Amino acid sequence: MKLYGYWRSTSSYRLRLALALKGLAFDQVPVHLVRGGGEHRSDAYRRINPQQRVPSLILDDGTVLTQSPAIIEYLEETFPLPPLLPADPIQRARIRAVAAIIGCDIHPLHNVGPLTHLRERFSASEDEIGRWVGRWIGEGLSAVEALIEDGHTYCFGPWPSLADVYLVPQVYAARRFGSALASLPKIARIVDYAEAQPLFRAAHPSRQPDAT
Amino acid sequence: MKLYGYWRSTSSYRLRLALALKGLAFDQVPVHLVRGGGEHRSDAYRRINPQQRVPSLILDDGTVLTQSPAIIEYLEETFPLPPLLPADPIQRARIRAVAAIIGCDIHPLHNVGPLTHLRERFSASEDEIGRWVGRWIGEGLSAVEALIEDGHTYCFGPWPSLADVYLVPQVYAARRFGSALASLPKIARIVDYAEAQPLFRAAHPSRQPDAT
Repeated sequence: MKLYGYWRSTSSYRLRLALALKGLAFDQVPVHLVRGGGEHRSDAYRRINPQQRVPSLILDDGTVLTQSPAIIEYLEETFPLPPLLPADPIQRARIRAVAAIIGCDIHPLHNVGPLTHLRERFSASEDEIGRWVGRWIGEGLSAVEALIEDGHTYCFGPWPSLADVYLVPQVYAARRFGSALASLPKIARIVDYAEAQPLFRAAHPSRQPDAT
Repeated sequence: MKLYGYWRSTSSYRLRLALALKGLAFDQVPVHLVRGGGEHRSDAYRRINPQQRVPSLILDDGTVLTQSPAIIEYLEETFPLPPLLPADPIQRARIRAVAAIIGCDIHPLHNVGPLTHLRERFSASEDEIGRWVGRWIGEGLSAVEALIEDGHTYCFGPWPSLADVYLVPQVYAARRFGSALASLPKIARIVDYAEAQPLFRAAHPSRQPDAT
């Protein structure tokens, strides 16, 4: 499999984690989102993913999959072990709710496109950008903090689940944006533990070939 | 089952459609998102859904499920017939990619919270709001138009799928915001057909008890 992504992109990080936790080998093709106006806007990348976003996963038969939530569900269905979702439907729904809070209510609002629009079209200052980003991260992660279970190593038990695959990259982004995690003790503890584990360490943005 | 939602909310509409297509009966409890500063901010609703967003689905045993993407996957797993996803993993990934474009790349950016923030904190004019909303709807629906298959009644075949469950409410929102669908002939044809079908008609915002 071949992963087109960007070291610092939250959704690329998410997908690297899912692949790593499932023990799947993949080659990386870096797509620089800033250099030269963004390599994702090139004709070459448009032929791979017409939406011109990262990540894209190319299967060994050449099939192109896009959108990290869809790709991760594909991986879970096609490579069920180790599982990122348990068998119980209610617990699956709770874990997917955490993923949706991060994937729908937080990450899209601090993605590069909206922030560029705010700077260029609304003349947003960096302070205003910080308050915008801080609001969605703060509200969203507070909701996650309330949903995850207490007393576990990971969000929902002793093994990482889909919730951790979304949470760890989101907390990496939160720290980049300077958001405080002081009021989120469960999240801070889980992410500190996860980031120290070998599979999570290998997927960290700073360890990617295109990291600068 | 009991659905806490709002007639015009895209994600409530999405969940009504999934319930209707699966033939599941549900009672509705309207949560007015505007009146009195928003009923979703009340203490009573916070006890149901601490994130204070709609929709929430209460199962017959009292279990509360939140986040429409998670709830719809729960419904698909628990009430598999009629299916909203086919058996083939690649096709499931393509359909979920359409859902993710709408659920992550379009809808969160025109949700009530971000638009209120733009108006109040960035002094955005209605023209500027229109360009912001129009950009995400335009880019996202163009990506969807490229992904859905040609020559079918619905996005991916002769029966509605998860993609249609997301697309029909998103097009309803696009029309509310005045976005043109002229360059999206596949989407326009699919949604016109779907909206004329009884199950889709019954789930339409204008037919809900709290519609004004």
